[in-house]
Amino acid sequence: MQIFVNTLHTQHTGQHEMFRGQMVPCHEVPARLDHVLAELAHRPVGPMLAPPAGDAAFDAALQSVLGRVHHPGYLTFLAQAWAEWVALDATNAQRDALPSVWPLPNRHGFSTLHPPRNFAARLGMYAFDAGTPLMAGSWAAAQAGAACALAAAQAVLADMAVSQSPAQTAATTASPGQQAQLPSALALTRPPGHHAGPDFMGGYCFLNNAAVAAQTLLDGGCTRVAVLDVDYHHGNGTQTIFYERADVLTVSIHGDPATEYPFYLGHADEVGAGAGEGFNLNLPLSRGSGADTWFEALDTALARIHAYQPQACVVPLGLDTFAGDPISGFRLQSADYLSMGRRLASLNLPTVFTFEGGYAVAEVGVNAVNVLLSFVDARPS
Amino acid sequence: MQIFVNTLHTQHTGQHEMFRGQMVPCHEVPARLDHVLAELAHRPVGPMLAPPAGDAAFDAALQSVLGRVHHPGYLTFLAQAWAEWVALDATNAQRDALPSVWPLPNRHGFSTLHPPRNFAARLGMYAFDAGTPLMAGSWAAAQAGAACALAAAQAVLADMAVSQSPAQTAATTASPGQQAQLPSALALTRPPGHHAGPDFMGGYCFLNNAAVAAQTLLDGGCTRVAVLDVDYHHGNGTQTIFYERADVLTVSIHGDPATEYPFYLGHADEVGAGAGEGFNLNLPLSRGSGADTWFEALDTALARIHAYQPQACVVPLGLDTFAGDPISGFRLQSADYLSMGRRLASLNLPTVFTFEGGYAVAEVGVNAVNVLLSFVDARPS
Repeated sequence: MQIFVNTLHTQHTGQHEMFRGQMVPCHEVPARLDHVLAELAHRPVGPMLAPPAGDAAFDAALQSVLGRVHHPGYLTFLAQAWAEWVALDATNAQRDALPSVWPLPNRHGFSTLHPPRNFAARLGMYAFDAGTPLMAGSWAAAQAGAACALAAAQAVLADMAVSQSPAQTAATTASPGQQAQLPSALALTRPPGHHAGPDFMGGYCFLNNAAVAAQTLLDGGCTRVAVLDVDYHHGNGTQTIFYERADVLTVSIHGDPATEYPFYLGHADEVGAGAGEGFNLNLPLSRGSGADTWFEALDTALARIHAYQPQACVVPLGLDTFAGDPISGFRLQSADYLSMGRRLASLNLPTVFTFEGGYAVAEVGVNAVNVLLSFVDARPS
Repeated sequence: MQIFVNTLHTQHTGQHEMFRGQMVPCHEVPARLDHVLAELAHRPVGPMLAPPAGDAAFDAALQSVLGRVHHPGYLTFLAQAWAEWVALDATNAQRDALPSVWPLPNRHGFSTLHPPRNFAARLGMYAFDAGTPLMAGSWAAAQAGAACALAAAQAVLADMAVSQSPAQTAATTASPGQQAQLPSALALTRPPGHHAGPDFMGGYCFLNNAAVAAQTLLDGGCTRVAVLDVDYHHGNGTQTIFYERADVLTVSIHGDPATEYPFYLGHADEVGAGAGEGFNLNLPLSRGSGADTWFEALDTALARIHAYQPQACVVPLGLDTFAGDPISGFRLQSADYLSMGRRLASLNLPTVFTFEGGYAVAEVGVNAVNVLLSFVDARPS
């Protein structure tokens, strides 16, 4: 598994988030990624790489894929947001931008005919929570993360091409003791991405890394890509991005949105729309669910993905299903992540992982590497 | 002018609001109302009264009118919100409830088929900002405020009935030096109301006192009522409540929503819908507008109201058009409020005032009483 690390991630270090009625220190902290790196140093999963930022073709590909999963106005907003925020008031440079007012759904008169000029109004229009602070380095960090997702998908595509060539097949069969791994890669990045939609941020996310990976796989020749979101929180951004499309099957196992963040979306009857009808599967589980329930849902997810016959898979890898997670409600134990990796490998699909949630900071490294290592140790069937 | 005072208003005393990315002390403070009371003590405008709360018929009328301007689910939510908030976590009793996550407009899959059970999710669903703290006494204070609006409208209705009776006409003509005042009353209350919609709170508002007054006037026999909102901020709640109705003409003079709070609604092309088409008039003015511009817009508003031929008028009276207001952007001076009162009286309509915004606390009393006193001193034409 090739691992693309976002070396700019600390540029996104939020001070506070609005959480349960008060400002609290951010849950989504740089140490999360550091713990994964530390664990990978002890238990290597694959080479640690940097995306080829600065390469003209790569940079062009990044802008291209971002433009296919996000709206141009949203990208422009993100790119300029910090400068606008500070221009409003020089003292804003000392604090993160957070939205505090937002448009209401389906009210008479609200229309995109009149996009507000005010920064606070646009921030609220492009966000669904006040828990996602935006600071000077957020855009750079988010772009570098999307670059990791692009590079990871490109690496998997390259490995897929090689593994499909007759020569490579011969080489593989020539050394049975060294059976080829499934093509796989990890975008090891934060801020996470799966809550970011076509034109909205929230849930600590700005750019949807999983969607970037899925779109890149399609652009690289796949005709069907599955996204299997195992984060505790519904992948509302990814669902929305692909909701009307049949070329990406989005599947999410998550806490029931009736009671669990991000609420509002993630119900079982959201099945896609238009051409995408039937290509979104939500598997909401009650808060408090343990491993038995979770792995039963995983079986359902894997069966649906298998039936879809995709050429590749993207796994938004959240570790906040862990029993010790401070803001989530499932009860998986660290050993369960070993099973998770093996079960994901049983799909026998080239796979891109994107690092998403997981706020039990001390344990997030062990749990993430448990998934990744058991995935790569599993042999293709 | 009969003045109904909300004696429970201090039960709503917020600690902080989310404002421009940080938590700051509330702008909407009890001292605002105290300054109006103090000024009224120096310059009386009329008798100071309390609504007949506890009277069974009055209480029933209050519940009835609230049910006609707000959705039942929203009222139930407000009534139970504090208890739910504290039940989540005993330490919540020490802090106000504020929303931090909200549904996005027009996203695939979000539907009222699945109202969330989670309190934070419902709070965000019923709110459009994080600047409207809800505390233990908010519901009691808001209900007492709506009772003031109901009582004020009932008082005006009673005076209208008397002034229309032949005996009263005779009595009035018998003493030409004591010419009858226009029937008028004031709901002197906070929290304010004009941002509260059928099922949403925000802008420091929970229950729409102006809508309660307008609906009460209709229920009391008026067939057409005009609402003339002179607060700096667009009356998005009132507009939404009456947007599809022709029996209430809603008119608002306010800062352009492209740049001014509450954003999103308040544009000139929002004219009403369905049966209400043509019965909403927004007069947005640029931030920085002075008295000349403002009074020109008032002339337009008065002409439209005159053409509508209403039997009564409701004036959501915000004083945040004042040059010294800390969160607004017009440049009216205290003397301009004397002109405002005279111009409002020129409509020659029975009028209910509701006390809305105005955050230059030390000046809000003088400015409010300037409007009210010049209104009652003006003679019916």
